Formats: sequence, C-alpha cells, structure tokens
Amino acid sequence: MVILTLNCGSSSAKYQVYDWEEKKVLGNGIVERIGENISTIESNMPGKEPLIRQRACPSHKEAVELIIKTILDKKGGCIKDINDIKAVGHRVVHGGETFTKSVIVTDEVLATLRELSPLAPLHNPANITGIMGAREVLPKVPHCAILDTAWHQTMPDKAFMYALPYSWYTDYNVRRYGFHGTSYLYTAKRASTLLGKDPKDTNVIIAHIGNGASMCAVKNGVCVDTSMGLTPLEGLIMGTRSGDMDPAIIPYIISRTDMNSKAVDRILNKQSGLLGITGQYIDRRDINDGVEDNDERCILAQDMEAYRIKKYLGAYSAALGRVDAIVFTAGVGEMSPPVRAKALSELESIGVKVDMEKNALSKSRNCETCISADDSKVKVFIIPTDEELVMTEDTFALMDGSYDVHTNFTYSFQSKDYVNKNREESLPRDLERRPGLEKIIVKP
Amino acid sequence: MVILTLNCGSSSAKYQVYDWEEKKVLGNGIVERIGENISTIESNMPGKEPLIRQRACPSHKEAVELIIKTILDKKGGCIKDINDIKAVGHRVVHGGETFTKSVIVTDEVLATLRELSPLAPLHNPANITGIMGAREVLPKVPHCAILDTAWHQTMPDKAFMYALPYSWYTDYNVRRYGFHGTSYLYTAKRASTLLGKDPKDTNVIIAHIGNGASMCAVKNGVCVDTSMGLTPLEGLIMGTRSGDMDPAIIPYIISRTDMNSKAVDRILNKQSGLLGITGQYIDRRDINDGVEDNDERCILAQDMEAYRIKKYLGAYSAALGRVDAIVFTAGVGEMSPPVRAKALSELESIGVKVDMEKNALSKSRNCETCISADDSKVKVFIIPTDEELVMTEDTFALMDGSYDVHTNFTYSFQSKDYVNKNREESLPRDLERRPGLEKIIVKP
Repeated sequence: MVILTLNCGSSSAKYQVYDWEEKKVLGNGIVERIGENISTIESNMPGKEPLIRQRACPSHKEAVELIIKTILDKKGGCIKDINDIKAVGHRVVHGGETFTKSVIVTDEVLATLRELSPLAPLHNPANITGIMGAREVLPKVPHCAILDTAWHQTMPDKAFMYALPYSWYTDYNVRRYGFHGTSYLYTAKRASTLLGKDPKDTNVIIAHIGNGASMCAVKNGVCVDTSMGLTPLEGLIMGTRSGDMDPAIIPYIISRTDMNSKAVDRILNKQSGLLGITGQYIDRRDINDGVEDNDERCILAQDMEAYRIKKYLGAYSAALGRVDAIVFTAGVGEMSPPVRAKALSELESIGVKVDMEKNALSKSRNCETCISADDSKVKVFIIPTDEELVMTEDTFALMDGSYDVHTNFTYSFQSKDYVNKNREESLPRDLERRPGLEKIIVKP
Repeated sequence: MVILTLNCGSSSAKYQVYDWEEKKVLGNGIVERIGENISTIESNMPGKEPLIRQRACPSHKEAVELIIKTILDKKGGCIKDINDIKAVGHRVVHGGETFTKSVIVTDEVLATLRELSPLAPLHNPANITGIMGAREVLPKVPHCAILDTAWHQTMPDKAFMYALPYSWYTDYNVRRYGFHGTSYLYTAKRASTLLGKDPKDTNVIIAHIGNGASMCAVKNGVCVDTSMGLTPLEGLIMGTRSGDMDPAIIPYIISRTDMNSKAVDRILNKQSGLLGITGQYIDRRDINDGVEDNDERCILAQDMEAYRIKKYLGAYSAALGRVDAIVFTAGVGEMSPPVRAKALSELESIGVKVDMEKNALSKSRNCETCISADDSKVKVFIIPTDEELVMTEDTFALMDGSYDVHTNFTYSFQSKDYVNKNREESLPRDLERRPGLEKIIVKP
C-alpha cells in the first residue's frame, strides 16, 4: 500500500511516496516554479541519480499530474499503478483553533481552511489549491490534512494569549498559534523513546532550526509554549525573518520613511533576520565561512542567532520547571555545530553541559546523537526530523480508522527498536556518515 | 547643601529636596496638570501632613517656580533660602548612544537631547522643557542630566541589535536602548552589598515592575541585556503596554480594521497590557481582588504577567551563566506577593527556591528583604528602589568633580552600613512596617 504526501507552497509542491508495509520511502521530490512558463520537477529514488525534467504547470493540478506521471514512469518511476496510491496526506499550515489533530478533507474542512486564510494569507491558499488539484487527479482516495498548528493547541491561555485588547482575540482571532507542529510531534516522541520514558512523563525543549526556525516547550508530552505566534514572524532569528523585536519599531520606521505597514511587513519577513544583519547571506554555511574569515557582520549574525536560541532555552527551562532533554532538529539544528556550540555554551545555570567534541562531530541527517556531557543533568539530542513520516502515518491511520489525537495514539517511530532507515537508504544526496558519530548514537 | 531633583513628564513634574550633609530627604512632591487651567501641587515633608495647592502652570517654568515657592514656604516649606539649592538633577529618558553616564547640562547637551527626541517623542521634549524651565528659575547652579538609558550602554551588540536591515541601525538608530537604568544601578549595587560581593563579581537579574515594567541582566556588575527596546513597549506585560508580541500583528490588525499604524501604536501603549486583558484594570491591587473573586480575565492577566516575568528570569539566567541573586523592585515588585509568587514558583530548573511565607510577608517599601529559601542556590531579594538618591548623588559628584561612570565610582549606598532611612522617615504615606518582616531583613 502506497501513501503519497504533498506539501504545496505558493509556487512549489514537495512530495513523498511511501510504501506502508515495507516502511520504506520509494521516492520523493519537488516541483518548482508552478504558474511560470517552465516548471521543473526533481525526483529522487533510492540508489538512483536524481531525475530533473521541465514541463509547464500553470497550476497545482498540473503539478500533481506531473508528480503522478513521474512516479509512474517506466524508466525513473517508483510505482507501477496509480491505483497503488491508497491515500494522500497534505501539509496545511494554519488550522486556527478548529483543528487539534489531523483530519480527512471534506468540503466542510476545505471551507473552514478557506475561512482561516486571512491568518496565513501566503500559505493556506496554496495548501488549498494543492488539495483541490490532488483531489481532481486522485478523486477516489481519501485526502487528509495534517496541520502545522494542531500540535500547539494544548498550550494554556497564559502562553497563547497576547496582552492586547481582548476583543482582538474574539473578533480577529489574534493569539499565538505556533507552527512546525508535525516536526515537534516527531522529535518529541523520539526524545521520549531515547530517554526510555513515557511521553506523558517527558519534558523537552525542541529547537527546530531551518530557514524558518522556532522552538517549543513540551511538558508531560504536550506543547505548552512555542516561539512562533499569530504568524511565523515571531521568535527566533531566521534566514530572512526578524523574530522578536520591539513592535514599536514598525510605527517608528513608518514615521521615518515613506513605507506603509505592508511594505514594512514584507521587509520583516523577507529582508530581515540573518540576511538583514549580514546584508548578503541567508545560508548558515555562508555565514560560518564569513565567521572563519573574521567578517564582523557574519560574527554578529551568528552570535545573535545563537544568543536568541540560548535565551529561549532559558525561558522554556523556567516555564517547564524540569527539563529532561533539549532537542535540535531541522537543517541548521542538525547540521550546524557552530550555532549549537554558541547557543549551548555556559548553560550550567539551567543544568546543561555539552560535550563540545561530540557537538562538533554531529552534523548528519542520518542518525540521532546525544551531545551532552555524561554528567549533564539535561540531555542534549540531535534528532533528524521526519515530518513526512508523521504525515504518512496520520494519513494511514485516518484511512484505517485507528487515528486519534497524539496523546491517545502510538506512532511506529515510538518503538525502542525503530531506526529511520529511509534517511540512509533513500536520500542519496545526503551527507556521508561522519567518522566517530557511531560512538555517540544513543542506545537507550 | 541642598540638591533638588526633577522628573518632568509631559504634564507633570516630580521633585525631591535632599540635604546632602544630613543624607536626608527634606521634602518631595509632584505638580500635575501642567498646561491646563488649574495645576495641582502636592508636597510632602517628613512628619507633616501632605500639602495640596492649586495654581495655574502654563508651562514647566511656572511649575518649577511653584515648586521653589512651595519648598520655601514659611508654613509648609522645607528650606529657608533659594540659595541653599546648590545643584539640580534632571531625569532624562533617552540618551541614545551618546550618553553613557550622567552629565552636566550645557547648550550642546541640550541640542543632542533635542536630536534624540524622535527616539522618545513623548518623553525627551518634556524633559527638555523641564530643564529649560528650571535653568530660567535657577540660573546660577549647575543642572545635570541623569539618563534612563546610560546604564544600558554596556550591552554587547548581540543583545542590543535587532535582526533587521542593518541600515535601520545606521540610518535610524534602531537598536535596543533599555530604560529604568537609574533604578537598575541602585538595585544592582545594593544587591552586591547584600551579597557581600564586589559589583565586578556580581551577576544579578533585576525585575523593575511598576506600571511600566522591565527586566535587566547584570553580569560582573554591568548591564548585558534588558527587556525594553528601542522604546519602552517591548518586554514585560505592563499596566497598559503589550510588551512582547508577534510584530506581524500590527500589519494584520491594520489590514483587518480601518486603523493606521499610529492608532495601533497608541493602543499597544495605552490600551493593552493588563488593561487590554482585563478590559478594565491597570492597578494590580484591583486585579488581585478580581483573582480572589475568581474573575477569569483577572486570573488570566495575573497569570500572563507572572509567566512573562518567569520566562525572562529563565532567559537571563541562561544569558548570565551564573546567577547570584534575583531582585524585585518598584511598586509591584516590592508590594505584590501574588505576582512574585507565580513568577517564582517551580523554578528549581534555574536554581531558585522561594520561601513562600517570606514572600507573602514582604510587601513594604521600607526595608530590604530576602525571600529565597535558605537552601536556594540563587538568592531572591526585594530591594525598594531609590532613583532620586542616584540622581542626587550623581548631581553632587558632577558638581564636586568626583563623578565617573558607575564602574569607577562608589556610591554612598554601597556601604555595608547603609540604611535607607528616608524611606521610613520621610514618606509618611508609605505602608506601615509589617510584623514579621524584621526577621527576614538581610544582614550580610
């Protein structure tokens, strides 16, 4: 049985094809430049060279058709019959307060997602277009929505409310929602397993640091706070997003320039963060090269990024009262020892002691590592995230009727014996295993 | 020798008359409704009933004249000859990056403060008007500026820079400045003394919680981070200010309503915070009454206020690496055990253990107390602040030629034997000493 997952952005569609019985990724890839004259598909199959093709995809419907055609291709494809696909899981960014778990998409669900679009005007319309396109191409199978916000709906009101006029909450839904929920679900459950604890007894702080970045405080297995807010702008310093700042800077800049609030909002989302500080770089590898070349603005950018993470580690440590582990995940969290080293230095005040040698070695997406010192009160794990697996498993369980909210559901990856083999076997472009990493793999 | 200190708001002027040799407050008070038809002066002398008079004060000049007249008054006054006043210290809110310590006001200084006014359009113009009025009334004595921002100029760039386009810093001075500096200077020095340590070896976190509220991380005796930013809006939840929020809420609200950015800025500063959440209360005593009456919105407001403080305690604990003490000061910090109790509960993860009985007893502005448990790694002090004393001492030292930046200067209140007697003797409206407090006074 094959499950397809789709993650549609405004002009792109990522996909993964998963064999449920074999627990194996058959292929994955991305269609880019949807809506332009020429769109590109890059598809990956385990053990094969990536395949790149160009086609016109005026809308997400044609993009889904191109994906189906590609995965059925006799030469480069990974399945033989379109009817092998038994269900499709769709990533949806904003579920508001309506969706506290994944759901089978009905017309009513689509209508609700449409109503929520003002909260995520860049993301939800693209997600909805993707779902509609996929339903046209694959009309006979269930389509499921896996929502980035659902994980965070367990936050208490003291964490999700802003100190703003109460009517902004009741009239305009202004509150903290949080994002990256699917990644937090995966890494929180994995951390419980690595600790040998029941999720219900596990407190962890998770830093999901990619181009977008956020953090999450998990108490007794559920989210109690997170750094992104009404939108993904709040919190950590990101590739191009400012994260936390004095909100009064917006009216101040408007008063000093001829920009309106939309123009400032665009700059805060697209030209701030690491790009704003360095003036030229988004990619942390470029910034790290700059640091090694003693570039002052790169040093400032890396110091600021790490310092913001460090402050959230402290804030969530206070919020949780007891922390079992800190988890780093996503591109930068998994692959950037210098950012982690700065964020985790001199944290004895919150019970964290890192083995900096282990930290320096741990830069692989292929295995889980523990980089805390043996006598650290709080463990520090690097756990490569796998949002697609959560989407796949939720989709399967929804189809199967076994699905429930994560506190009443046990995922396959919560097993003690679980190893994410697909990381090594199906992603040929991933980095090689690093010498010395094996010795720091956690074997609970 | 008498030193007068003045703190001019847009329509008010607070003053204090201090006898330097006797280390004694001779009187203090406030002129309110400056610029309206009828202004009011309330003056207090130790051991006497407060005196309230009404006069017209079209500008701060007349307000200063009224203050001089009142303190010289044969019946209710506290000095006999205007020539006894040897210097005047003025509180100034924004000193930008120019002023790293207190300074004698010259025309050049005034010009610089005027240039900085766009950064504090509500405060600096009023401060400047006050200085000019006082110079007219007392032209022969030195006038000194004591700046709220000066204390914070030791912050490293990773703490004061925002992840915004770098040109906003160079072109528009967008950075974190911080406020309440005079209060932090006083309480940080006092904390060092209570700990029996040199300020250079002291790490403390200070929470200055009044109607406006901020926090400060002090490492080796100097400020390394603070919660207020470009303006006093950022950070903690305040009486009417939102503090931290997703900045994207501003463009979102503008897009959903017919407000412009100025109108939203006004709401964030004047109708948000505790007032926004409860819909009716600013004063924490009202909110606490509401909590006791099980009012849901009051409970939410108090929980949110305390939770924000708790998160900053954690963040600054991580930033400092080692914390010797946490200090609460200012109206709410000194007088509101319920807010402190919630903020300080379950903080063992950062080494803090509070004696909740001591916390409940400590609600006086008259003495310093220690409310941490005997086995708490981090001490928790309540230290009534005394910004006027810092202003007075800076002014005296500037006149005397002995003044220097605080790291090279020893204040009178750093003495082991120092007791702020004026708190008890000169402020007749202050609360009575509470039974049981004596036993928890720190005697280092």
